[in-house]
Amino acid sequence: MSKATIVLFSGDLDKALAAFVIATGAAASGWDVVLFFTFWGINLVRDPKKKAKKPKDMMSNMFGMMMPNGADALTLSKMHMAGMGTAMMKSRMKAKKVQPLKDMIKDAKELGVKFLVCDMSMDIMGLQKSEFIKEVDEIVGVGTYLKESKDANLTLFI
Amino acid sequence: MSKATIVLFSGDLDKALAAFVIATGAAASGWDVVLFFTFWGINLVRDPKKKAKKPKDMMSNMFGMMMPNGADALTLSKMHMAGMGTAMMKSRMKAKKVQPLKDMIKDAKELGVKFLVCDMSMDIMGLQKSEFIKEVDEIVGVGTYLKESKDANLTLFI
Amino acid sequence: MSKATIVLFSGDLDKALAAFVIATGAAASGWDVVLFFTFWGINLVRDPKKKAKKPKDMMSNMFGMMMPNGADALTLSKMHMAGMGTAMMKSRMKAKKVQPLKDMIKDAKELGVKFLVCDMSMDIMGLQKSEFIKEVDEIVGVGTYLKESKDANLTLFI
Repeated sequence: MSKATIVLFSGDLDKALAAFVIATGAAASGWDVVLFFTFWGINLVRDPKKKAKKPKDMMSNMFGMMMPNGADALTLSKMHMAGMGTAMMKSRMKAKKVQPLKDMIKDAKELGVKFLVCDMSMDIMGLQKSEFIKEVDEIVGVGTYLKESKDANLTLFI
Repeated sequence: MSKATIVLFSGDLDKALAAFVIATGAAASGWDVVLFFTFWGINLVRDPKKKAKKPKDMMSNMFGMMMPNGADALTLSKMHMAGMGTAMMKSRMKAKKVQPLKDMIKDAKELGVKFLVCDMSMDIMGLQKSEFIKEVDEIVGVGTYLKESKDANLTLFI
Repeated sequence: MSKATIVLFSGDLDKALAAFVIATGAAASGWDVVLFFTFWGINLVRDPKKKAKKPKDMMSNMFGMMMPNGADALTLSKMHMAGMGTAMMKSRMKAKKVQPLKDMIKDAKELGVKFLVCDMSMDIMGLQKSEFIKEVDEIVGVGTYLKESKDANLTLFI
């Protein structure tokens, strides 16, 4: 069986879309796919309707507010233009019947894609597991990502 | 034989140069090299002298005008500074006898590098095959990229 | 033995941190790790206390001054906000007992990570070997990077 591991470092909408098109495409073809969410990429798995369970320090609150809260809040890396570019891209995707990111995330999970979140980034950004979408499988260190990548055919950093 | 597949997601001059230095270097050493142009990376294979054959809707026209039209129109991801940084880099490359991106693209093709364009991105951005440089081999889905990557030694997302 | 090669293209603090967390993590687990510093990534291995040995032309001096000089001078790719975001991230890393980039570089070297610098980028940016940190092993062409990547389990472009 083929295998792919993708580090999702970026919190940009366009890069996240590219990552999920590759991930769901691979999983649909029977590949074993592992996503490792780190740094800004963690914003993709935040659930805006969920709250932190433990109290947060000021810095954690600041990071939390400054970063996009969940897949719907991401913006483009280019041509964002105060939201117009991002809105254009989203309406365009709809017209061309390309799924929104949120649905791709659900699909990926149904197809068996593994969602791993980097413990170090989570700690630095002051996020808690209770704030994540239910698709997240595990909070792990870089060692788990490396173990998964050892026998992967395709390894990407996005 | 060794093999490399590169997703060319970025439409930045510096990243495109890095991708083509790796691609031509590998092809010159006998590697099998496949480029998959997606999102902003598609702008690299637009030919500013060519026109769309089918009529375009307003959104496609807007995307087309807002994005860089072809390899010569790309700018740096950093230090662009209203064009000065990009001009500096280009004059510097000339002084150091490094080929411009346009020539690297031609060389890559002569060395047997395969040029695949992502059908979904093309559709979203409203571009047509008739607008591309002649180096483009095929318009394909992510499945073709995955099949090519299965047995690759080197897989990059740029 | 497992092996990883990482192209360090970016000169952003966050991406450099991600690269070094992966590199030191892999090396600590017994992997063979090769870093290939190119383009803005070369700024990571500049030593602000060292000087060029040969005289520099004006363009080289300009590039040298405009780019971050060494690991301590890097800034975030996002949320830099005139320095505040970068300062926040650094203080946060300290609070969470995550090593600063400078220490990760030293650790990587001690763990046997190989530091290769791209000759073409160095030439374009007008940098000289005498300006680099002592961790740098060799100045090489893309061919060396490709040879190292041939049998790597994990290949990333950061």
